Amino acid sequence: MDFKETVEALSSVEHNLMNHYGKESVPYPSQEELKEIVELARTILFPGYFGRRLNNETSLPYHMGVNVERLYYKLLKQIMAGLGFAIDYESLTSLADAAHKRAKAFVESLPELRDLLVTDVTAHYRNDPAAHNEGEVILCYPGMKAISSYRIAHRLVELDVPLIPRMISELAHAETGIDIHPGARIGHSFAIDHGTGVVIGATSIIGHNVTIYQGVTLGAKNFPQEEDGTLVKGIDRHPILGDHVIVYANATILGRITIGNNTVIGGNIWVTNDVPADTKLFYKKSE
Amino acid sequence: MDFKETVEALSSVEHNLMNHYGKESVPYPSQEELKEIVELARTILFPGYFGRRLNNETSLPYHMGVNVERLYYKLLKQIMAGLGFAIDYESLTSLADAAHKRAKAFVESLPELRDLLVTDVTAHYRNDPAAHNEGEVILCYPGMKAISSYRIAHRLVELDVPLIPRMISELAHAETGIDIHPGARIGHSFAIDHGTGVVIGATSIIGHNVTIYQGVTLGAKNFPQEEDGTLVKGIDRHPILGDHVIVYANATILGRITIGNNTVIGGNIWVTNDVPADTKLFYKKSE
Amino acid sequence: MDFKETVEALSSVEHNLMNHYGKESVPYPSQEELKEIVELARTILFPGYFGRRLNNETSLPYHMGVNVERLYYKLLKQIMAGLGFAIDYESLTSLADAAHKRAKAFVESLPELRDLLVTDVTAHYRNDPAAHNEGEVILCYPGMKAISSYRIAHRLVELDVPLIPRMISELAHAETGIDIHPGARIGHSFAIDHGTGVVIGATSIIGHNVTIYQGVTLGAKNFPQEEDGTLVKGIDRHPILGDHVIVYANATILGRITIGNNTVIGGNIWVTNDVPADTKLFYKKSE
Amino acid sequence: MDFKETVEALSSVEHNLMNHYGKESVPYPSQEELKEIVELARTILFPGYFGRRLNNETSLPYHMGVNVERLYYKLLKQIMAGLGFAIDYESLTSLADAAHKRAKAFVESLPELRDLLVTDVTAHYRNDPAAHNEGEVILCYPGMKAISSYRIAHRLVELDVPLIPRMISELAHAETGIDIHPGARIGHSFAIDHGTGVVIGATSIIGHNVTIYQGVTLGAKNFPQEEDGTLVKGIDRHPILGDHVIVYANATILGRITIGNNTVIGGNIWVTNDVPADTKLFYKKSE
Amino acid sequence: MDFKETVEALSSVEHNLMNHYGKESVPYPSQEELKEIVELARTILFPGYFGRRLNNETSLPYHMGVNVERLYYKLLKQIMAGLGFAIDYESLTSLADAAHKRAKAFVESLPELRDLLVTDVTAHYRNDPAAHNEGEVILCYPGMKAISSYRIAHRLVELDVPLIPRMISELAHAETGIDIHPGARIGHSFAIDHGTGVVIGATSIIGHNVTIYQGVTLGAKNFPQEEDGTLVKGIDRHPILGDHVIVYANATILGRITIGNNTVIGGNIWVTNDVPADTKLFYKKSE
Amino acid sequence: MDFKETVEALSSVEHNLMNHYGKESVPYPSQEELKEIVELARTILFPGYFGRRLNNETSLPYHMGVNVERLYYKLLKQIMAGLGFAIDYESLTSLADAAHKRAKAFVESLPELRDLLVTDVTAHYRNDPAAHNEGEVILCYPGMKAISSYRIAHRLVELDVPLIPRMISELAHAETGIDIHPGARIGHSFAIDHGTGVVIGATSIIGHNVTIYQGVTLGAKNFPQEEDGTLVKGIDRHPILGDHVIVYANATILGRITIGNNTVIGGNIWVTNDVPADTKLFYKKSE
Repeated sequence: MDFKETVEALSSVEHNLMNHYGKESVPYPSQEELKEIVELARTILFPGYFGRRLNNETSLPYHMGVNVERLYYKLLKQIMAGLGFAIDYESLTSLADAAHKRAKAFVESLPELRDLLVTDVTAHYRNDPAAHNEGEVILCYPGMKAISSYRIAHRLVELDVPLIPRMISELAHAETGIDIHPGARIGHSFAIDHGTGVVIGATSIIGHNVTIYQGVTLGAKNFPQEEDGTLVKGIDRHPILGDHVIVYANATILGRITIGNNTVIGGNIWVTNDVPADTKLFYKKSE
Repeated sequence: MDFKETVEALSSVEHNLMNHYGKESVPYPSQEELKEIVELARTILFPGYFGRRLNNETSLPYHMGVNVERLYYKLLKQIMAGLGFAIDYESLTSLADAAHKRAKAFVESLPELRDLLVTDVTAHYRNDPAAHNEGEVILCYPGMKAISSYRIAHRLVELDVPLIPRMISELAHAETGIDIHPGARIGHSFAIDHGTGVVIGATSIIGHNVTIYQGVTLGAKNFPQEEDGTLVKGIDRHPILGDHVIVYANATILGRITIGNNTVIGGNIWVTNDVPADTKLFYKKSE
Repeated sequence: MDFKETVEALSSVEHNLMNHYGKESVPYPSQEELKEIVELARTILFPGYFGRRLNNETSLPYHMGVNVERLYYKLLKQIMAGLGFAIDYESLTSLADAAHKRAKAFVESLPELRDLLVTDVTAHYRNDPAAHNEGEVILCYPGMKAISSYRIAHRLVELDVPLIPRMISELAHAETGIDIHPGARIGHSFAIDHGTGVVIGATSIIGHNVTIYQGVTLGAKNFPQEEDGTLVKGIDRHPILGDHVIVYANATILGRITIGNNTVIGGNIWVTNDVPADTKLFYKKSE
Repeated sequence: MDFKETVEALSSVEHNLMNHYGKESVPYPSQEELKEIVELARTILFPGYFGRRLNNETSLPYHMGVNVERLYYKLLKQIMAGLGFAIDYESLTSLADAAHKRAKAFVESLPELRDLLVTDVTAHYRNDPAAHNEGEVILCYPGMKAISSYRIAHRLVELDVPLIPRMISELAHAETGIDIHPGARIGHSFAIDHGTGVVIGATSIIGHNVTIYQGVTLGAKNFPQEEDGTLVKGIDRHPILGDHVIVYANATILGRITIGNNTVIGGNIWVTNDVPADTKLFYKKSE
Repeated sequence: MDFKETVEALSSVEHNLMNHYGKESVPYPSQEELKEIVELARTILFPGYFGRRLNNETSLPYHMGVNVERLYYKLLKQIMAGLGFAIDYESLTSLADAAHKRAKAFVESLPELRDLLVTDVTAHYRNDPAAHNEGEVILCYPGMKAISSYRIAHRLVELDVPLIPRMISELAHAETGIDIHPGARIGHSFAIDHGTGVVIGATSIIGHNVTIYQGVTLGAKNFPQEEDGTLVKGIDRHPILGDHVIVYANATILGRITIGNNTVIGGNIWVTNDVPADTKLFYKKSE
Repeated sequence: MDFKETVEALSSVEHNLMNHYGKESVPYPSQEELKEIVELARTILFPGYFGRRLNNETSLPYHMGVNVERLYYKLLKQIMAGLGFAIDYESLTSLADAAHKRAKAFVESLPELRDLLVTDVTAHYRNDPAAHNEGEVILCYPGMKAISSYRIAHRLVELDVPLIPRMISELAHAETGIDIHPGARIGHSFAIDHGTGVVIGATSIIGHNVTIYQGVTLGAKNFPQEEDGTLVKGIDRHPILGDHVIVYANATILGRITIGNNTVIGGNIWVTNDVPADTKLFYKKSE
């Protein structure tokens, strides 16, 4: 076979939008690397549940030490890739420095991340009558997979790392069907049951002890346009949920509205206005 | 880089909830192993569609023999892992015996499992105008992937294997977006079309010849709490569907209610009370 | 362990429906191969974003040449597998010829496919206030993953390749939760946001500049049966959407109805009748 | 970096001797495939010692069946590759037929090959005071590795398969340092101890119950030239060894000479003339 | 293809010598596992030269801890495999205990092994005018590969582990062409240059500061037979070399003779009698 | 198990000679990477024989382009590793520059390397009566493997790359049993038959059209010592061979002597003095 013409057409620079050329000595964003980074972070945060078998407390620090070091180096490269992708930098050295600072800060915040995730595990266990123990939650629950990836990605957002957080959250989305934008701010003791179809938008704010079921959307209500028709970027456009809120399956909450503390939003409910605290909003059955 | 403090903080035993130490000589639950076990079971149940190419009927028993033996040994380890994770056992020998009995019983029930899956394949083919032949159903349909994993996991539940069934069903959930709890009881000739977002709760009972579309929830209506606020575990809280029931896309059926034989539940419908046999329940359009 | 009886039972020819024997010298359909084919196609269509790092315009044609040639040979085998699976062919030579013609035509249409995908990338970028640049869309957005797989699979449908397109679309379904039947016809500048739970049926027709959100179904309303109870295959039974249509999250559009140009279908809406052009259809909130 | 000129220079057709273009639809010779073929043959000939663990006699035929079938298909491809490399064939069909006949004949001679190898294992065990049991010989001894590869390669030579036998013997040479040309003819109960540096030329003939130590050469004495200076190919130019011959370390035997039955050639000896039966030839020490 | 008869012939129990059935719950000897064990041991003994990159002294103990633990578990299995292969044991528990004791003792002797290997590295560096530094010796020199494998294997011999030491030494033999029987006893500061073809027999004893070149054999002179013609096993039959001995290329030293301290054996020399200390034995050139 | 003390002993800095700490941002020498580099170079030098199948002359430049670029980047890293290992450098930038210059020069000399290797292939084919065609020589002959690795390594020596050339030559040594020091200088049309045990020392000089057989040593005769007893490094101490020289199996040539043009050195011969041109030196048989 001879595809000379096709190859030439595909190599023409017309659609340069579709081509990405690596910058000299800068690593490039890699889904495979990010999968391993998330896997490694889970190994650090839930040792013995993920990664290699853990035998006893004596060997825990050895494993921790090796994994933390490895995570740092892998993350350093991907952060450098994300920065190199998104920003104009002065020199390779300044880019490397910027990446190093962020990777170091991320690794140093792992104990804090672990403190947060303990509350999420406990929340899942308490909320699901089918859960037998916390270990089952850690090993099996897609909610925990999505939330741990979100917390990792969100920490990277806080550290001003571009691109990489979104790639991490999309990996979790593909794995669990749960789509949490890494920009969202979410309190402790967060639980998502079943989870497929959940969407949590970029500017959502969620309090502590919130539980969400499958198919729930925290979305934008409308999209103001610039004069040229493109959407205005960066406006606060997603809901704010208070503490101790429960949102049942397939409910849709749209716009920069506030759902008060201790409120329950019933399944299939469509909400586009503020809801006061301590409310129970339920669906009028269609039967 | 030097992360000594971080490593120490992460190795402290404070959050022992998050650490899992393997017990001496007991295998540990492995998602990778379970993926291979499901793949191997599919190779046995649909020979020539999955796993290695099959050339003719003469070599079928060779492949079957090797695969059945391999499945037994792999399953034995994972069942032992599940038992070791969940129960207090007297001795390693008694644990191994308990695992052996279960793995043997599972393998011996494979022909029966295969009989059931034939009815599911036929049901999918009959129900989908877009299906060209049964082979396409076996090879491509996410419904068949989810149901075959469910039937494997449910058989393990019947054999009192802890943890492992749930891990298997979550693997199918991740692959298909269909979340069938392995505790549910489902009759023959079961079909799920498209399937993303389907949730079938732990105590659901589904009759024969039932068809379900994407986004359908068979869920719990409310969650009685213990005095300490944790949810009561183990109550029958999910729906019972009769034979020849169809549930269209995104319908939600909640609570221990009964949907009678030959009933059709329309798309987007919200059902929380019993529905008599031979009913057709449809949505009042919102236009 | 001795499973002689089980092996014999599983090797009996009773359920031959479940066994697939390869035909002499014909490759067989392989999910693994198809995953690599899609990955390779993405590498060709978005060079430097997927596959190996790309360094500069000089080396672009080298990569393109190697990848195009490799795609051709891999695809040739899978098309042969699909044809061998589905049709009765005269001779191995005629089968190989038929596969060659289709693989060649597919490869030669890659530049055209690339032209179409540019419009989709632009559409996603314009529609999402959270998108920072087109590169982010290409690298992360599940909508782009699903649409590029759909466009590949649909081209194969146009070339009369059986089975393989459906297998490709189910791989994308598993990865993204977006289920686009490869038979659907879709115009340029198509965007899907979040996407989990989207179902687009086999005979759907979608115009240019259409945007769809998570959970949207373009489905069939009813399924006429043959006299023997099986469903009639091949009828036009899914919606037609005009140009510049937006369908918000979880809306359900059923049957061979027409949604006019510039129409907006609100979230959670249930539509089973034609909708004229320039309409805005919204949900009456249940609060 | 831009290596355009270098790439062009390397792609020029000047040194076409160094380029190999595959023929349409003909597999090509693959060292990796041949490694797997030898490994698979060892699994068939020494079941349970190589390849997967073997549990009992009941499952032996299953493993045998799967492995024999697999060996046939892998070998078929490589024989076709060898034939396609070396001969001008009429049509693809005739090439495939020729390969099929040879692969089938090879597989059918496996039991006979196994009978021969039993005698070799026994010979190694009997000859080495350091051997604890036959299993150790099978698992560890480089002599057995080299001889089993030789017997496989020689059988392929007998079946008129070009190229492939030599590739197999060079794989064994690389693994063991023992270089047995597949054209040599060797009787039963053959043993090589240590073996590094052993060379057995293409036209050597070796009787039964012969033992050889490391560094022994059975070579050619001189190389008659054609008028154009190239060496004459295909002459009998290597030694003939009778039965029950022992050749100690680093001895060199050159030319078409005959070493009689029951003869012992001492270490470091240089032999270029016939040696009668029942002789013991030893080195005059240089001390 | 149908190879039913061949499969039956190969599955007959006639040549049971060639079949190996695993014992219930006992691991089996695995070349692949042993390769990894040697690789892991090298990583422990030469950290940063083999295995993963090492960054600084802070992280050294982490890597050491993880690798030592892993080596223990891997070795435990292979020792159990070797014991299970070679001995009749009372119960699985007693077998496991025996393996545990040996694996533990091996791991605890690693620091001592490392002390010995330091002397070997230094000896290689001092002896080779082409060596630039000790790192080059550790990374590249086949002598160091063979000696480190020998010291590992010999330690296992001392711990009464059957089969496994020989498998390890044959792996090194295949890699380097140097065949040191694990039973040999060798002092500190041992160096082998080039090494291909070196053979050191099972009962050899080598002093400190000995250097050996390629092709040197320390072999047996004759093999006393039992009355039934098999060789007598276990006799001391290989040479004893004193301290500070040098043996140049291709020299052959045979039988239970003693080579005194500070002796030099020239290349190509054939020695079958004792050599007093401080001797220089050279070849009379044949020119 | 608890190996705390062992881990501590192994982590002590006493034997720092045995530890290698990577320098910040400098890659480290990797045998695995070098194996791939040699494989890649073979793919470039003998396209279609090694690496991926090559279909026709049209696609040759695509493959060449991709492989040349890949080789450059891989080599760049390993050259940087070698430089970082061996020298004290001013800054990371100067190290990277030094590596870049060498890698570029190496890649640009590939066409010249290929010209040389053509002469070696032809020499092997002409010299071996058992060779059927040049393709067989390229695919199977260990002599060609060793010589191509030598020519690659020697080119790197000429470019002042430390460590890496020796690592490459030791990989070839392990594969073929042929040990050519990368410092040796060797003319065109060089052939090695069988080859196991060949040793060619660091300062050897070999003319054009030379042929060497297994077990031949071109070595040093004596090793002058420094006053402190270490060997003097860097003296010319190995033989010089003229053009059209043949050295038969197991001959040993020692010291800085000269073997004249057109000379034949017989097997097993020991040479330590100059040999004039046009001489034939043969062994006096010991019979």
